[in-house]
Amino acid sequence: MELKNEQLLLINRPSGLPTKEDFSFEQLDTPVLGEGEVIVRTLYLSVDPYMRGRMNDTKSYVPPFQLDQAISGGLIGEVTETATDTFAVGDLVTGILPFRRVNAVKESLLRKITSDPLPPSVFLGPLGMTGLTAYFGLLDIGNPSEGDTLVVSGAAGAVGSLVCQIGKLKGAHVVGIVGSDEKAAYLKELGVDATVNYKTDDVPSALETACPDGIDIYFDNVGGPVSDAALSLINDGARIPICGQISLYNLQKQDVGPRIQPNLLVNRALMKGFIVSDYAHRYAEGEAQLTEWLLQGKLTYRESVIDGFENTVDAFLGLFSGTNIGKQLVHVADPVRH
Amino acid sequence: MELKNEQLLLINRPSGLPTKEDFSFEQLDTPVLGEGEVIVRTLYLSVDPYMRGRMNDTKSYVPPFQLDQAISGGLIGEVTETATDTFAVGDLVTGILPFRRVNAVKESLLRKITSDPLPPSVFLGPLGMTGLTAYFGLLDIGNPSEGDTLVVSGAAGAVGSLVCQIGKLKGAHVVGIVGSDEKAAYLKELGVDATVNYKTDDVPSALETACPDGIDIYFDNVGGPVSDAALSLINDGARIPICGQISLYNLQKQDVGPRIQPNLLVNRALMKGFIVSDYAHRYAEGEAQLTEWLLQGKLTYRESVIDGFENTVDAFLGLFSGTNIGKQLVHVADPVRH
Repeated sequence: MELKNEQLLLINRPSGLPTKEDFSFEQLDTPVLGEGEVIVRTLYLSVDPYMRGRMNDTKSYVPPFQLDQAISGGLIGEVTETATDTFAVGDLVTGILPFRRVNAVKESLLRKITSDPLPPSVFLGPLGMTGLTAYFGLLDIGNPSEGDTLVVSGAAGAVGSLVCQIGKLKGAHVVGIVGSDEKAAYLKELGVDATVNYKTDDVPSALETACPDGIDIYFDNVGGPVSDAALSLINDGARIPICGQISLYNLQKQDVGPRIQPNLLVNRALMKGFIVSDYAHRYAEGEAQLTEWLLQGKLTYRESVIDGFENTVDAFLGLFSGTNIGKQLVHVADPVRH
Repeated sequence: MELKNEQLLLINRPSGLPTKEDFSFEQLDTPVLGEGEVIVRTLYLSVDPYMRGRMNDTKSYVPPFQLDQAISGGLIGEVTETATDTFAVGDLVTGILPFRRVNAVKESLLRKITSDPLPPSVFLGPLGMTGLTAYFGLLDIGNPSEGDTLVVSGAAGAVGSLVCQIGKLKGAHVVGIVGSDEKAAYLKELGVDATVNYKTDDVPSALETACPDGIDIYFDNVGGPVSDAALSLINDGARIPICGQISLYNLQKQDVGPRIQPNLLVNRALMKGFIVSDYAHRYAEGEAQLTEWLLQGKLTYRESVIDGFENTVDAFLGLFSGTNIGKQLVHVADPVRH
């Protein structure tokens, strides 16, 4: 009964903002253990803005989801059966897997996690792709120095809230752009120097006030006019990691704005799009540093958790209305063995 | 008589395309030699698109020209008097100097050139800022590999024609975007694989035909819609050195077009504005390699020379109507001693 299985299908390619009608839940049999596989019972799912891109049938840095098949993403689960030497029943594992209550998974697609004293969900947040995205995007592309001004859009989100804190650890003057006073208050708790609420402030003048010395690094999660305002303030030699463009993912017309090239030219500035897997060869370094900061309390994180596999679509859609602070997770089940 | 002096002043900040009325020639005395100075008689002047930016009173990577003062730029001259140990009468020198027939110059602002067997003007072209711009912009930011597709805009210009050739030397498939059939024919002589005439071709479809494997490097001298078309074809991991934006320098309205950030994101692409002086610490390397290629005949260049100091404004304005192929120079005088 407990291992009753279910999966979340994409049944329409959304045009614009996805709706519940683009998805469908399907009952299915509990999977049978195959050679070299383990059975993984899902505990937490991660919903992330980049998944919107996979719902289109267009070129991106990850292939599109297939229609009428399960969408997939970051997941933490517990091993309930094993046909491998690597994984034992009760092990906690993570991977990019189909959104099902139970998966049969080749061992090569899984990684064992031992998070104690941190909770396992940390591997979908600051010790997972989220944390590594913040770490490498900021440090490798943004390259912050003591005294630099770092502006972060989507600053209270999963990646943004970590970027802000890592920026402070590196001695930057950090300004976060957010969409609510609650998010601004959260960033102040994290030690962020100033915040701009793009829904209630005049962004260009508020940013100018918050950045009296201009902007050395603009870590962009959102794109669009908010970014135009930040980019109008960049300094000579500025660095602009492009991590996300969430304000545009559901746009149905062409995204038009001031061309950025003349600005990059006169400021000798660098703009670079990236995906965390560009840094796969350096994950161990990132994980070690992030773990140290977490255990020392220098890096904190917040999770927004929605309970129930059946609410996964709501959790995902909430990313675009900005309901989450920090990492948005779906809690599916509790571990039996922990 | 021969050393009668004259200078070219900026007397109005142009709005849009500069006109002759924005400039004025002024007679002045022959300068008097001061301590640590040499008297330099101008032989060649370099006119360059970036000088347009200095005519505005706005932030750029070089400070604005001052009104009612001589504009300055790259110059080659002959020493006619000296109060230094470094320079002797008859030496050929280069520097960024006021556009005058004769200048009194502190020795620290000059560099002696010995170009034989190449003509001295090579130091305003392939062995000067022009060549170093092409060399470092392409090799350091563009980072071409064998088989990469390199697209160059402003491809028959001073920098562009060198970028095309260096790209071929590195084994790239090189496509040049130009504004006339004569320029296209010149690029074909240089070994460029394909050309697109932005005035007569449909740029998006012509580029698509010329770049069957997409674009790995887009070396941008022009900006605007031509660049939009090139950028729509970039490959994963593309590099985009922003060297110039000549199509926009005289624009009087805001430059609006498709925002590039989503494209950079999904292609994990890098776009970087630069100025040659970013590479000042590596000039010796660049000059050595460029000299070797020139002497081996692997790198060739063309000059468009206008005769007469009094025609300097015409030479400069011609850059914006695209009259020049290769480097645009003004011939002011012949050396006495060579």
